[in-house]
Amino acid sequence: MLTKAKIKYINALSQKKNRTQELVFVAEGIKVLEEILTSDFKVKEVFCTKEVFNYFSTLIQKETELTEVLESELEKISFLKTPQKVLALIEQKEANLPFENLENKLNLFLDDINDPGNLGTILRIAAWFGIENIICSSDCVDVYNPKVVQASMGAIAGKNILYVNKLEFFQKVKAQTKLPIFGTFLEGNDIYTETLSNEGIIVLGSEAHGISPDLQAFVTKKLFIPSFAIQQQGVESLNVAIAAAIVCSEFRRR
Amino acid sequence: MLTKAKIKYINALSQKKNRTQELVFVAEGIKVLEEILTSDFKVKEVFCTKEVFNYFSTLIQKETELTEVLESELEKISFLKTPQKVLALIEQKEANLPFENLENKLNLFLDDINDPGNLGTILRIAAWFGIENIICSSDCVDVYNPKVVQASMGAIAGKNILYVNKLEFFQKVKAQTKLPIFGTFLEGNDIYTETLSNEGIIVLGSEAHGISPDLQAFVTKKLFIPSFAIQQQGVESLNVAIAAAIVCSEFRRR
Repeated sequence: MLTKAKIKYINALSQKKNRTQELVFVAEGIKVLEEILTSDFKVKEVFCTKEVFNYFSTLIQKETELTEVLESELEKISFLKTPQKVLALIEQKEANLPFENLENKLNLFLDDINDPGNLGTILRIAAWFGIENIICSSDCVDVYNPKVVQASMGAIAGKNILYVNKLEFFQKVKAQTKLPIFGTFLEGNDIYTETLSNEGIIVLGSEAHGISPDLQAFVTKKLFIPSFAIQQQGVESLNVAIAAAIVCSEFRRR
Repeated sequence: MLTKAKIKYINALSQKKNRTQELVFVAEGIKVLEEILTSDFKVKEVFCTKEVFNYFSTLIQKETELTEVLESELEKISFLKTPQKVLALIEQKEANLPFENLENKLNLFLDDINDPGNLGTILRIAAWFGIENIICSSDCVDVYNPKVVQASMGAIAGKNILYVNKLEFFQKVKAQTKLPIFGTFLEGNDIYTETLSNEGIIVLGSEAHGISPDLQAFVTKKLFIPSFAIQQQGVESLNVAIAAAIVCSEFRRR
Protein backbone atom coordinates (compact mmCIF):
# COMPACT_ATOMS: atom_id res chain seq x y z
CA MET A 1 0.00 0.00 0.00
CA LEU A 2 1.24 3.39 -1.01
CA THR A 3 0.25 6.35 1.13
CA LYS A 4 -0.61 9.69 -0.46
CA ALA A 5 2.32 11.22 1.40
CA LYS A 6 4.72 8.69 -0.10
CA ILE A 7 3.42 9.33 -3.63
CA LYS A 8 3.93 13.05 -3.11
CA TYR A 9 7.41 12.46 -1.69
CA ILE A 10 8.51 10.33 -4.67
CA ASN A 11 7.01 12.69 -7.26
CA ALA A 12 8.94 15.55 -5.66
CA LEU A 13 12.20 13.69 -6.35
CA SER A 14 11.89 14.64 -10.02
CA GLN A 15 13.42 17.95 -8.90
CA LYS A 16 17.10 18.25 -8.13
CA LYS A 17 16.61 20.49 -5.10
CA ASN A 18 14.44 17.84 -3.43
CA ARG A 19 16.84 15.03 -4.30
CA THR A 20 19.74 17.01 -2.87
CA GLN A 21 17.85 17.86 0.30
CA GLU A 22 16.81 14.24 0.89
CA LEU A 23 20.06 12.73 -0.51
CA VAL A 24 17.89 10.17 -2.24
CA PHE A 25 17.23 9.23 -5.87
CA VAL A 26 14.87 7.01 -7.84
CA ALA A 27 15.79 4.07 -10.06
CA GLU A 28 13.36 1.93 -12.07
CA GLY A 29 13.27 -1.30 -13.99
CA ILE A 30 14.48 -4.82 -13.31
CA LYS A 31 17.87 -4.58 -15.04
CA VAL A 32 18.73 -1.22 -13.52
CA LEU A 33 17.87 -2.42 -10.03
CA GLU A 34 19.72 -5.71 -10.43
CA GLU A 35 22.81 -3.64 -11.16
CA ILE A 36 22.28 -1.25 -8.25
CA LEU A 37 21.34 -3.95 -5.72
CA THR A 38 24.64 -5.74 -6.31
CA SER A 39 26.65 -2.52 -5.84
CA ASP A 40 27.59 -0.55 -2.73
CA PHE A 41 24.55 1.73 -3.07
CA LYS A 42 22.24 1.60 -0.05
CA VAL A 43 18.72 0.89 -1.29
CA LYS A 44 16.15 2.25 1.16
CA GLU A 45 12.82 1.13 -0.30
CA VAL A 46 11.68 -1.03 -3.18
CA PHE A 47 8.15 -0.88 -4.63
CA CYS A 48 7.24 -3.66 -7.03
CA THR A 49 4.29 -5.49 -8.55
CA LYS A 50 3.19 -8.95 -7.45
CA GLU A 51 4.82 -10.51 -10.51
CA VAL A 52 8.38 -9.71 -9.38
CA PHE A 53 7.84 -9.50 -5.60
CA ASN A 54 9.38 -12.89 -4.79
CA TYR A 55 12.34 -12.22 -7.05
CA PHE A 56 13.15 -8.90 -5.39
CA SER A 57 12.62 -10.29 -1.91
CA THR A 58 15.65 -12.52 -2.56
CA LEU A 59 17.74 -9.70 -4.05
CA ILE A 60 17.33 -6.92 -1.51
CA GLN A 61 19.58 -6.08 1.39
CA LYS A 62 18.34 -6.81 4.93
CA GLU A 63 17.61 -3.20 5.79
CA THR A 64 15.64 -2.53 2.60
CA GLU A 65 11.89 -2.11 2.89
CA LEU A 66 9.96 -4.02 0.20
CA THR A 67 6.39 -3.07 -0.68
CA GLU A 68 4.06 -4.76 -3.13
CA VAL A 69 2.11 -2.25 -5.21
CA LEU A 70 -0.59 -2.43 -7.86
CA GLU A 71 0.25 -1.44 -11.43
CA SER A 72 -2.07 1.52 -10.98
CA GLU A 73 -0.09 2.61 -7.90
CA LEU A 74 3.24 2.18 -9.69
CA GLU A 75 1.96 4.47 -12.44
CA LYS A 76 1.49 7.22 -9.86
CA ILE A 77 5.13 7.14 -8.71
CA SER A 78 6.93 6.16 -11.92
CA PHE A 79 8.86 8.68 -14.04
CA LEU A 80 8.57 6.40 -17.07
CA LYS A 81 5.85 6.41 -19.70
CA THR A 82 5.58 2.65 -19.28
CA PRO A 83 6.39 1.69 -15.67
CA GLN A 84 8.78 -1.27 -15.43
CA LYS A 85 7.38 -3.37 -12.57
CA VAL A 86 9.76 -2.00 -9.93
CA LEU A 87 10.90 1.35 -8.53
CA ALA A 88 13.34 2.01 -5.71
CA LEU A 89 14.50 4.83 -3.47
CA ILE A 90 18.26 4.81 -3.05
CA GLU A 91 20.67 6.86 -0.95
CA GLN A 92 22.96 9.19 -2.85
CA LYS A 93 26.66 8.56 -2.27
CA GLU A 94 29.04 11.25 -1.20
CA ALA A 95 31.63 11.70 -3.91
CA ASN A 96 35.20 11.35 -2.76
CA LEU A 97 37.92 11.51 -5.34
CA PRO A 98 41.40 12.51 -4.14
CA PHE A 99 43.89 13.38 -6.87
CA GLU A 100 46.06 10.32 -6.24
CA ASN A 101 43.09 8.22 -7.39
CA LEU A 102 43.26 9.86 -10.82
CA GLU A 103 46.81 8.68 -11.42
CA ASN A 104 47.69 5.58 -13.44
CA LYS A 105 44.15 5.58 -14.77
CA LEU A 106 42.01 6.90 -17.57
CA ASN A 107 39.46 9.38 -16.24
CA LEU A 108 36.64 11.28 -17.93
CA PHE A 109 35.89 14.97 -17.53
CA LEU A 110 32.45 16.06 -18.78
CA ASP A 111 32.21 19.73 -19.73
CA ASP A 112 28.61 20.98 -19.44
CA ILE A 113 26.85 17.83 -20.67
CA ASN A 114 23.20 18.88 -20.35
CA ASP A 115 21.27 16.05 -21.91
CA PRO A 116 20.34 13.32 -19.38
CA GLY A 117 20.30 10.63 -22.07
CA ASN A 118 23.82 11.55 -23.13
CA LEU A 119 25.16 11.54 -19.56
CA GLY A 120 23.54 8.16 -18.83
CA THR A 121 24.90 6.66 -22.06
CA ILE A 122 28.39 8.00 -21.30
CA LEU A 123 28.26 6.30 -17.86
CA ARG A 124 27.36 3.03 -19.57
CA ILE A 125 30.26 3.46 -22.01
CA ALA A 126 32.59 4.23 -19.08
CA ALA A 127 31.51 0.99 -17.36
CA TRP A 128 32.22 -1.00 -20.51
CA PHE A 129 35.68 0.53 -20.88
CA GLY A 130 36.57 0.26 -17.19
CA ILE A 131 36.63 3.97 -16.43
CA GLU A 132 35.53 4.53 -12.84
CA ASN A 133 36.27 8.21 -12.24
CA ILE A 134 33.89 10.68 -13.88
CA ILE A 135 34.40 14.35 -13.11
CA CYS A 136 31.53 16.65 -14.13
CA SER A 137 31.56 20.42 -14.48
CA SER A 138 29.00 21.99 -12.18
CA ASP A 139 26.80 22.78 -15.20
CA CYS A 140 26.37 19.14 -16.17
CA VAL A 141 22.94 17.60 -15.60
CA ASP A 142 22.57 15.93 -12.17
CA VAL A 143 23.68 12.30 -12.27
CA TYR A 144 20.75 11.39 -9.99
CA ASN A 145 18.22 12.78 -12.49
CA PRO A 146 15.82 9.86 -13.17
CA LYS A 147 16.49 10.06 -16.92
CA VAL A 148 20.24 9.79 -16.35
CA VAL A 149 19.82 6.77 -14.07
CA GLN A 150 17.55 5.15 -16.68
CA ALA A 151 19.85 5.78 -19.63
CA SER A 152 22.83 4.49 -17.64
CA MET A 153 21.06 1.12 -17.20
CA GLY A 154 22.37 1.13 -13.65
CA ALA A 155 25.95 2.00 -14.62
CA ILE A 156 26.05 4.77 -12.03
CA ALA A 157 27.02 1.91 -9.68
CA GLY A 158 30.72 1.29 -9.09
CA LYS A 159 31.74 4.80 -10.12
CA ASN A 160 33.18 7.90 -8.47
CA ILE A 161 31.21 10.81 -9.85
CA LEU A 162 32.35 14.23 -8.71
CA TYR A 163 30.93 17.68 -9.55
CA VAL A 164 33.50 20.47 -9.60
CA ASN A 165 34.15 24.07 -10.52
CA LYS A 166 35.94 23.28 -13.77
CA LEU A 167 38.56 26.02 -13.76
CA GLU A 168 39.59 25.36 -10.16
CA PHE A 169 39.71 21.63 -10.89
CA PHE A 170 42.07 21.93 -13.86
CA GLN A 171 44.26 24.51 -12.11
CA LYS A 172 44.75 21.99 -9.29
CA VAL A 173 45.34 19.12 -11.73
CA LYS A 174 48.07 21.18 -13.42
CA ALA A 175 49.66 22.17 -10.11
CA GLN A 176 49.50 18.82 -8.35
CA THR A 177 49.80 16.15 -11.06
CA LYS A 178 51.52 15.44 -14.35
CA LEU A 179 48.42 13.87 -15.88
CA PRO A 180 48.04 14.39 -19.62
CA ILE A 181 44.76 16.03 -20.58
CA PHE A 182 43.14 14.94 -23.84
CA GLY A 183 40.38 16.62 -25.82
CA THR A 184 38.95 16.42 -29.33
CA PHE A 185 39.27 19.44 -31.62
CA LEU A 186 38.90 20.02 -35.35
CA GLU A 187 42.61 20.90 -35.53
CA GLY A 188 43.80 17.96 -33.39
CA ASN A 189 45.91 14.96 -34.39
CA ASP A 190 44.23 11.90 -35.92
CA ILE A 191 43.14 9.76 -32.96
CA TYR A 192 43.57 6.58 -35.01
CA THR A 193 47.31 7.08 -35.46
CA GLU A 194 48.30 9.21 -32.45
CA THR A 195 50.13 7.63 -29.51
CA LEU A 196 47.72 7.40 -26.60
CA SER A 197 48.34 6.46 -22.98
CA ASN A 198 46.31 4.57 -20.42
CA GLU A 199 46.68 7.44 -17.95
CA GLY A 200 45.14 10.87 -18.08
CA ILE A 201 41.93 12.84 -18.28
CA ILE A 202 39.76 12.76 -21.40
CA VAL A 203 37.68 15.95 -21.71
CA LEU A 204 34.32 15.60 -23.49
CA GLY A 205 32.72 18.86 -24.59
CA SER A 206 29.09 19.82 -24.50
CA GLU A 207 26.58 18.81 -27.19
CA ALA A 208 26.17 22.36 -28.47
CA HIS A 209 29.49 24.06 -27.88
CA GLY A 210 32.25 21.44 -27.67
CA ILE A 211 35.01 21.98 -25.12
CA SER A 212 34.58 25.44 -23.58
CA PRO A 213 37.24 28.03 -24.52
CA ASP A 214 38.50 28.43 -20.95
CA LEU A 215 39.31 24.72 -20.75
CA GLN A 216 41.05 24.47 -24.10
CA ALA A 217 44.30 25.91 -22.68
CA PHE A 218 44.53 23.03 -20.22
CA VAL A 219 44.42 20.35 -22.91
CA THR A 220 47.92 18.92 -23.44
CA LYS A 221 47.05 16.64 -26.36
CA LYS A 222 44.55 17.67 -28.99
CA LEU A 223 42.90 14.81 -30.84
CA PHE A 224 40.64 14.65 -33.86
CA ILE A 225 38.14 11.98 -34.94
CA PRO A 226 38.32 11.92 -38.73
CA SER A 227 35.10 11.66 -40.69
CA PHE A 228 34.82 9.27 -43.62
CA ALA A 229 31.73 10.95 -45.04
CA ILE A 230 31.35 10.56 -48.79
CA GLN A 231 29.55 13.73 -49.70
CA GLN A 232 30.39 16.86 -47.79
CA GLN A 233 26.78 17.96 -48.05
CA GLY A 234 25.84 19.64 -44.82
CA VAL A 235 27.90 19.25 -41.69
CA GLU A 236 28.24 15.75 -40.33
CA SER A 237 28.67 15.66 -36.60
CA LEU A 238 28.79 13.08 -33.87
CA ASN A 239 26.61 13.00 -30.79
CA VAL A 240 28.82 13.46 -27.68
CA ALA A 241 28.06 9.93 -26.43
CA ILE A 242 29.03 8.45 -29.81
CA ALA A 243 32.25 10.48 -29.79
CA ALA A 244 32.90 9.24 -26.25
CA ALA A 245 32.52 5.63 -27.39
CA ILE A 246 34.98 6.06 -30.26
CA VAL A 247 37.51 7.90 -28.09
CA CYS A 248 37.33 5.36 -25.23
CA SER A 249 37.57 2.49 -27.70
CA GLU A 250 40.73 3.99 -29.22
CA PHE A 251 42.38 4.52 -25.82
CA ARG A 252 41.60 1.01 -24.63
CA ARG A 253 42.43 -1.06 -27.69
CA ARG A 254 46.12 -0.05 -27.67
CA MET B 1 -2.13 30.71 -41.69
CA LEU B 2 -2.69 27.09 -40.92
CA THR B 3 -6.06 25.60 -41.77
CA LYS B 4 -7.72 23.07 -39.47
CA ALA B 5 -7.53 20.52 -42.26
CA LYS B 6 -3.77 21.02 -42.59
CA ILE B 7 -3.26 20.61 -38.84
CA LYS B 8 -5.24 17.38 -38.92
CA TYR B 9 -3.29 16.17 -41.96
CA ILE B 10 0.09 16.78 -40.30
CA ASN B 11 -0.95 15.24 -36.97
CA ALA B 12 -2.04 12.11 -38.82
CA LEU B 13 1.51 11.72 -40.15
CA SER B 14 2.58 10.49 -36.72
CA GLN B 15 1.22 7.13 -37.90
CA LYS B 16 3.12 4.98 -40.33
CA LYS B 17 0.06 3.93 -42.31
CA ASN B 18 -0.75 7.57 -43.10
CA ARG B 19 2.86 8.39 -43.98
CA THR B 20 2.98 5.40 -46.31
CA GLN B 21 -0.32 6.30 -47.94
CA GLU B 22 0.72 9.92 -48.52
CA LEU B 23 4.41 9.10 -49.18
CA VAL B 24 5.25 12.11 -47.04
CA PHE B 25 7.14 12.61 -43.77
CA VAL B 26 7.76 15.39 -41.27
CA ALA B 27 11.12 16.90 -40.30
CA GLU B 28 11.68 19.65 -37.74
CA GLY B 29 14.37 22.00 -36.56
CA ILE B 30 16.80 24.31 -38.30
CA LYS B 31 19.80 21.94 -38.46
CA VAL B 32 17.74 18.98 -39.65
CA LEU B 33 16.12 21.03 -42.40
CA GLU B 34 19.38 22.62 -43.50
CA GLU B 35 20.64 19.09 -44.08
CA ILE B 36 17.52 17.94 -45.92
CA LEU B 37 17.15 21.09 -48.04
CA THR B 38 20.66 20.61 -49.47
CA SER B 39 19.96 16.96 -50.34
CA ASP B 40 17.95 15.34 -53.13
CA PHE B 41 14.81 15.13 -50.99
CA LYS B 42 11.86 17.02 -52.43
CA VAL B 43 10.52 19.37 -49.76
CA LYS B 44 6.84 20.09 -50.34
CA GLU B 45 5.96 22.60 -47.64
CA VAL B 46 7.83 24.51 -44.95
CA PHE B 47 6.10 26.11 -41.94
CA CYS B 48 8.24 28.45 -39.88
CA THR B 49 8.04 31.30 -37.41
CA LYS B 50 8.69 34.94 -38.36
CA GLU B 51 12.15 34.78 -36.81
CA VAL B 52 13.52 32.35 -39.41
CA PHE B 53 11.19 33.12 -42.33
CA ASN B 54 13.71 35.14 -44.31
CA TYR B 55 16.42 32.57 -43.75
CA PHE B 56 14.29 29.72 -45.04
CA SER B 57 12.99 31.72 -47.98
CA THR B 58 16.60 31.75 -49.27
CA LEU B 59 17.13 28.03 -48.60
CA ILE B 60 14.06 26.44 -50.13
CA GLN B 61 13.66 25.01 -53.59
CA LYS B 62 11.48 26.89 -56.10
CA GLU B 63 8.56 24.50 -55.91
CA THR B 64 8.44 24.50 -52.09
CA GLU B 65 5.57 26.29 -50.42
CA LEU B 66 6.69 28.45 -47.47
CA THR B 67 4.20 29.51 -44.79
CA GLU B 68 4.81 31.77 -41.83
CA VAL B 69 3.12 30.47 -38.67
CA LEU B 70 2.72 31.68 -35.10
CA GLU B 71 4.51 29.78 -32.33
CA SER B 72 1.07 28.74 -31.09
CA GLU B 73 0.27 27.29 -34.53
CA LEU B 74 3.61 25.49 -34.70
CA GLU B 75 2.82 23.85 -31.36
CA LYS B 76 -0.29 22.34 -32.89
CA ILE B 77 1.61 20.57 -35.68
CA SER B 78 4.94 19.82 -33.99
CA PHE B 79 5.88 16.33 -32.76
CA LEU B 80 8.45 17.83 -30.38
CA LYS B 81 7.91 18.87 -26.77
CA THR B 82 9.64 22.14 -27.60
CA PRO B 83 8.94 23.10 -31.23
CA GLN B 84 12.07 24.22 -33.09
CA LYS B 85 10.89 27.20 -35.18
CA VAL B 86 10.43 25.20 -38.38
CA LEU B 87 8.63 22.08 -39.61
CA ALA B 88 8.49 20.67 -43.13
CA LEU B 89 6.59 18.12 -45.16
CA ILE B 90 8.89 16.11 -47.39
CA GLU B 91 8.32 13.47 -50.05
CA GLN B 92 9.48 9.97 -49.19
CA LYS B 93 12.00 8.51 -51.60
CA GLU B 94 11.57 5.20 -53.26
CA ALA B 95 14.38 2.93 -52.16
CA ASN B 96 16.39 1.43 -54.98
CA LEU B 97 19.37 -0.67 -54.11
CA PRO B 98 20.53 -3.19 -56.68
CA PHE B 99 23.05 -5.75 -55.44
CA GLU B 100 25.89 -4.38 -57.54
CA ASN B 101 25.68 -1.21 -55.43
CA LEU B 102 26.56 -3.21 -52.33
CA GLU B 103 29.87 -4.35 -53.76
CA ASN B 104 33.20 -2.66 -52.99
CA LYS B 105 31.50 -0.90 -50.09
CA LEU B 106 30.73 -1.26 -46.42
CA ASN B 107 26.99 -1.61 -45.89
CA LEU B 108 24.88 -1.88 -42.75
CA PHE B 109 22.13 -4.39 -42.11
CA LEU B 110 19.83 -3.58 -39.18
CA ASP B 111 18.09 -6.58 -37.65
CA ASP B 112 14.85 -5.56 -35.89
CA ILE B 113 16.04 -2.22 -34.50
CA ASN B 114 12.86 -0.99 -32.81
CA ASP B 115 13.93 2.12 -30.96
CA PRO B 116 13.59 5.27 -33.12
CA GLY B 117 16.38 7.03 -31.22
CA ASN B 118 18.75 4.15 -31.92
CA LEU B 119 17.88 4.02 -35.63
CA GLY B 120 18.33 7.79 -35.99
CA THR B 121 21.66 7.71 -34.16
CA ILE B 122 22.87 4.81 -36.33
CA LEU B 123 22.03 6.83 -39.47
CA ARG B 124 24.10 9.71 -38.09
CA ILE B 125 27.00 7.33 -37.39
CA ALA B 126 26.67 5.90 -40.90
CA ALA B 127 26.91 9.42 -42.37
CA TRP B 128 30.05 10.11 -40.37
CA PHE B 129 31.70 6.88 -41.52
CA GLY B 130 30.61 7.23 -45.13
CA ILE B 131 28.20 4.31 -45.22
CA GLU B 132 25.38 5.07 -47.64
CA ASN B 133 23.53 1.78 -47.92
CA ILE B 134 21.37 0.80 -44.94
CA ILE B 135 19.27 -2.33 -45.24
CA CYS B 136 16.59 -2.76 -42.58
CA SER B 137 14.69 -5.91 -41.68
CA SER B 138 10.96 -5.38 -42.11
CA ASP B 139 10.54 -5.31 -38.32
CA CYS B 140 12.77 -2.26 -37.89
CA VAL B 141 11.07 0.99 -36.93
CA ASP B 142 10.05 3.13 -39.95
CA VAL B 143 12.88 5.45 -41.00
CA TYR B 144 10.30 8.22 -41.63
CA ASN B 145 9.06 8.06 -38.03
CA PRO B 146 9.44 11.67 -36.74
CA LYS B 147 11.62 10.49 -33.83
CA VAL B 148 14.00 8.73 -36.21
CA VAL B 149 14.27 11.80 -38.44
CA GLN B 150 14.94 13.95 -35.36
CA ALA B 151 17.60 11.64 -33.86
CA SER B 152 19.31 11.37 -37.26
CA MET B 153 19.81 15.16 -37.31
CA GLY B 154 18.91 15.01 -40.97
CA ALA B 155 21.29 12.15 -41.77
CA ILE B 156 18.53 10.29 -43.60
CA ALA B 157 19.62 12.48 -46.53
CA GLY B 158 22.13 11.02 -48.98
CA LYS B 159 21.37 7.43 -48.03
CA ASN B 160 19.79 4.39 -49.65
CA ILE B 161 17.53 2.88 -47.03
CA LEU B 162 15.82 -0.35 -47.99
CA TYR B 163 13.35 -2.50 -46.02
CA VAL B 164 13.53 -6.22 -46.81
CA ASN B 165 12.42 -9.66 -45.75
CA LYS B 166 15.65 -10.56 -44.00
CA LEU B 167 15.88 -14.24 -44.86
CA GLU B 168 15.15 -13.68 -48.54
CA PHE B 169 17.67 -10.84 -48.59
CA PHE B 170 20.54 -12.89 -47.17
CA GLN B 171 19.71 -15.91 -49.32
CA LYS B 172 20.03 -13.67 -52.38
CA VAL B 173 23.24 -12.08 -51.08
CA LYS B 174 24.75 -15.56 -50.65
CA ALA B 175 23.61 -16.69 -54.10
CA GLN B 176 24.50 -13.56 -56.06
CA THR B 177 27.54 -12.02 -54.35
CA LYS B 178 30.70 -12.95 -52.49
CA LEU B 179 30.27 -10.20 -49.89
CA PRO B 180 31.58 -11.05 -46.43
CA ILE B 181 28.95 -10.72 -43.72
CA PHE B 182 30.08 -9.47 -40.32
CA GLY B 183 28.29 -9.64 -36.99
CA THR B 184 29.18 -9.27 -33.32
CA PHE B 185 28.84 -12.29 -31.03
CA LEU B 186 30.10 -13.17 -27.58
CA GLU B 187 32.16 -15.98 -29.09
CA GLY B 188 33.55 -13.91 -31.98
CA ASN B 189 37.13 -12.81 -32.67
CA ASP B 190 38.46 -9.65 -31.03
CA ILE B 191 37.48 -6.79 -33.36
CA TYR B 192 40.56 -4.79 -32.36
CA THR B 193 42.99 -7.36 -33.73
CA GLU B 194 40.97 -9.13 -36.44
CA THR B 195 41.62 -8.39 -40.11
CA LEU B 196 38.70 -6.36 -41.46
CA SER B 197 37.86 -5.34 -44.99
CA ASN B 198 36.30 -2.25 -46.51
CA GLU B 199 33.73 -4.36 -48.32
CA GLY B 200 30.85 -6.31 -46.89
CA ILE B 201 27.70 -6.17 -44.80
CA ILE B 202 27.84 -5.41 -41.09
CA VAL B 203 24.82 -6.89 -39.28
CA LEU B 204 23.67 -5.04 -36.15
CA GLY B 205 21.33 -6.98 -33.88
CA SER B 206 18.32 -5.72 -32.00
CA GLU B 207 18.55 -3.97 -28.63
CA ALA B 208 16.92 -6.84 -26.77
CA HIS B 209 17.90 -9.98 -28.64
CA GLY B 210 21.10 -9.35 -30.59
CA ILE B 211 21.36 -10.89 -34.05
CA SER B 212 18.40 -13.21 -34.59
CA PRO B 213 19.19 -16.96 -34.69
CA ASP B 214 18.03 -17.39 -38.29
CA LEU B 215 20.54 -14.77 -39.47
CA GLN B 216 23.50 -16.11 -37.52
CA ALA B 217 24.16 -18.85 -40.09
CA PHE B 218 24.70 -16.20 -42.79
CA VAL B 219 27.46 -14.42 -40.88
CA THR B 220 30.84 -15.31 -42.38
CA LYS B 221 32.99 -13.47 -39.82
CA LYS B 222 32.02 -13.35 -36.17
CA LEU B 223 33.47 -10.41 -34.24
CA PHE B 224 33.54 -9.53 -30.57
CA ILE B 225 33.88 -6.14 -28.86
CA PRO B 226 35.91 -6.83 -25.71
CA SER B 227 34.88 -5.14 -22.48
CA PHE B 228 37.50 -3.52 -20.24
CA ALA B 229 35.19 -3.40 -17.22
CA ILE B 230 37.01 -3.47 -13.90
CA GLN B 231 34.51 -5.20 -11.69
CA GLN B 232 32.38 -7.89 -13.19
CA GLN B 233 29.49 -6.85 -11.02
CA GLY B 234 26.33 -7.16 -13.01
CA VAL B 235 26.37 -7.47 -16.78
CA GLU B 236 27.87 -4.59 -18.70
CA SER B 237 26.35 -4.13 -22.11
CA LEU B 238 26.49 -1.65 -24.94
CA ASN B 239 23.56 0.14 -26.51
CA VAL B 240 23.25 -0.93 -30.18
CA ALA B 241 24.10 2.56 -31.46
CA ILE B 242 27.24 2.67 -29.30
CA ALA B 243 28.25 -0.77 -30.57
CA ALA B 244 27.62 0.47 -34.14
CA ALA B 245 29.95 3.41 -33.54
CA ILE B 246 32.77 1.20 -32.25
CA VAL B 247 32.37 -1.33 -35.05
CA CYS B 248 32.24 1.31 -37.82
CA SER B 249 35.23 3.10 -36.30
CA GLU B 250 37.25 -0.15 -36.34
CA PHE B 251 36.36 -0.93 -39.95
CA ARG B 252 37.21 2.56 -41.13
CA ARG B 253 40.44 3.25 -39.28
CA ARG B 254 42.32 0.39 -40.99
